[in-house]
Amino acid sequence: MAETTTNQATMNRWWRLRRRPTGALATSDLELATDPIAPLQDGQALVRTLVLSVEAASRIWLGHQRAFMPSVPVGGMVRGIGVGEVIASRRADLHVGDVVAGFLGWQEFCVADDRLLDAPLTTLPSPLPAPASAFVGVLGHIGISAYLGVDYLDPGPGQTVVISAAAGGVGSIAGQLAKLRGARVVGIAGGPAKCRYVVDELGFDACVDHRDPAWRDLLDAAITDGVDLDFENVGGPIMDHLLMRLNVGAKIFLCGEVSQYDDSGERTAWRGLVNVDQIHMQRATMRGFIVTDHLDRWPEAIDALAALWTAGRLMYRESVVTGLEHAPAALARLLAGDTVGKLVVAVAEPQLSRGVQLVITGSR
Amino acid sequence: MAETTTNQATMNRWWRLRRRPTGALATSDLELATDPIAPLQDGQALVRTLVLSVEAASRIWLGHQRAFMPSVPVGGMVRGIGVGEVIASRRADLHVGDVVAGFLGWQEFCVADDRLLDAPLTTLPSPLPAPASAFVGVLGHIGISAYLGVDYLDPGPGQTVVISAAAGGVGSIAGQLAKLRGARVVGIAGGPAKCRYVVDELGFDACVDHRDPAWRDLLDAAITDGVDLDFENVGGPIMDHLLMRLNVGAKIFLCGEVSQYDDSGERTAWRGLVNVDQIHMQRATMRGFIVTDHLDRWPEAIDALAALWTAGRLMYRESVVTGLEHAPAALARLLAGDTVGKLVVAVAEPQLSRGVQLVITGSR
Repeated sequence: MAETTTNQATMNRWWRLRRRPTGALATSDLELATDPIAPLQDGQALVRTLVLSVEAASRIWLGHQRAFMPSVPVGGMVRGIGVGEVIASRRADLHVGDVVAGFLGWQEFCVADDRLLDAPLTTLPSPLPAPASAFVGVLGHIGISAYLGVDYLDPGPGQTVVISAAAGGVGSIAGQLAKLRGARVVGIAGGPAKCRYVVDELGFDACVDHRDPAWRDLLDAAITDGVDLDFENVGGPIMDHLLMRLNVGAKIFLCGEVSQYDDSGERTAWRGLVNVDQIHMQRATMRGFIVTDHLDRWPEAIDALAALWTAGRLMYRESVVTGLEHAPAALARLLAGDTVGKLVVAVAEPQLSRGVQLVITGSR
Repeated sequence: MAETTTNQATMNRWWRLRRRPTGALATSDLELATDPIAPLQDGQALVRTLVLSVEAASRIWLGHQRAFMPSVPVGGMVRGIGVGEVIASRRADLHVGDVVAGFLGWQEFCVADDRLLDAPLTTLPSPLPAPASAFVGVLGHIGISAYLGVDYLDPGPGQTVVISAAAGGVGSIAGQLAKLRGARVVGIAGGPAKCRYVVDELGFDACVDHRDPAWRDLLDAAITDGVDLDFENVGGPIMDHLLMRLNVGAKIFLCGEVSQYDDSGERTAWRGLVNVDQIHMQRATMRGFIVTDHLDRWPEAIDALAALWTAGRLMYRESVVTGLEHAPAALARLLAGDTVGKLVVAVAEPQLSRGVQLVITGSR
């Protein structure tokens, strides 16, 4: 088919994995490369990245651990989920002006050939019913993870739900959804400011600062009735402590272990989970979860989240970093626990005037 | 009601917890006590212990870890499940000659008052359709655990099931049940003799000797297609290794962690599970299990097990130690992995001639 080009770019900047990080991510582990964009072939479209999601999984993909997707090879492009707009197309299913979401990679322009990408791109509704960034956040895989996790845990009145990384993208939404179901919701977050945000703005019943040296006592004081449900995003010593507080029949939704992503090969600083026996003793159930396994439930989840969002019943905050060149530092900050809400990198303004409103705001 | 006594004993020997064990159980942690048997009150019956089950849970109850039943207090009687016969009764629901099963304790005579026992005793069918010991084994909580665990795992053709403590009471039955469903079954056991038993007599497809220094390589060679289902009885480093071999969607039935029972407080020798992240990455599910939670399914399980047993489709071996005085040494041997099949202590011969056939044989 004929190439339809309204705004053909010629050069692409992208983040390359220079060396596999050991321990904490150093921005020097990555390098910004610039390459010419090859002419489109039939079956390809050119997508300009508008916004990229920065998330803990990014660190998994840079490591060497056995994960749910292959490691990024050294020399390869950093994997990432984003929203972009089609600026040229030789694909029948993508048209100039379409806004798409998926694994665009950490780059300014993606040659979108579904045979080459990690997964097919999804075309978003037009006009967009929410800011583009929402589709990598509250209305994207982040919100959907929270929705499906809370659906699995099925909290209700009289139950205590603990949510780690409570100020993060997934945790902040999960806690609000659990509150809507009438449960007592206890968050865990790093630092007093985040804890205030979790309680005062998100409406959790309590939030424990895991950076406080007395965090174990503080946590125990917040869960005097034990833990019925654990929306686990962090793993490590905090999870191990929670295991000792499980009630009979407890459920653990294992959505992440961000405390463990820095160095899966040589975790010398921490000895591992010693209280997994409590899953036996308390007849608990632990379920591991990857949101892309459940594409069949995405429409249901998005509808539910959009309805709550539209009704003003879901608080949501983004941390926005502007410019692709700052993406590695943003990821390092996220892994250090220095960001609040969903972290995104704004890469470009939309070039096409189609009523797309790219409004990346502090919160709802 | 009037006391009906056909054979009133006067003295009871019982095992007392002298001090809480640290590390491996020492028989000197327990002491054999002798007390007079108090006259029966209304609502009580006197039960003579015929056979006691020796199992890993006994060690849990002697420790201080948070478990599914309270720890035995220092000075208290060792908790144990057994089969006994009623030799005197002032209870309307128990009659002299009845054979009962339940938490009799490590003693020769149990004053059976359901208000004082850990759980009500169960009256077994009369005449007994199998040796009394079977009711703490293949037709009791051991076989039922295996049955319900395999039912949960739901193995089928093309799947690999790993069963730790494969030569033990639960593992040996679980493996045979999984084989009957068409799965490939890999056992793990300690020592060449046990491994031969597991493969040659029980019919597992393979069995790995975890005492072999190369056990990791041997295990990997036996599970080249990964692990779909894990019937986990052992925990510890072997479980941690299996976690790294889970396939997507794997299920773990967490029935025991016998490697961890010796010292839950100060597990200095082993650092804990570092691969629990794989439950996330492989979207696995782990479920903790205690058989007494599922009394509603015991009749179904017993029927199924009895049918297989009667048809000669279930191999089952007992290790029998004769004499209550040898119970602590038997438990220590079990914890050291030195027993094969279900371990029981034969405490007494039945005194009453009711067609009860107490035949404790090597196997069916």
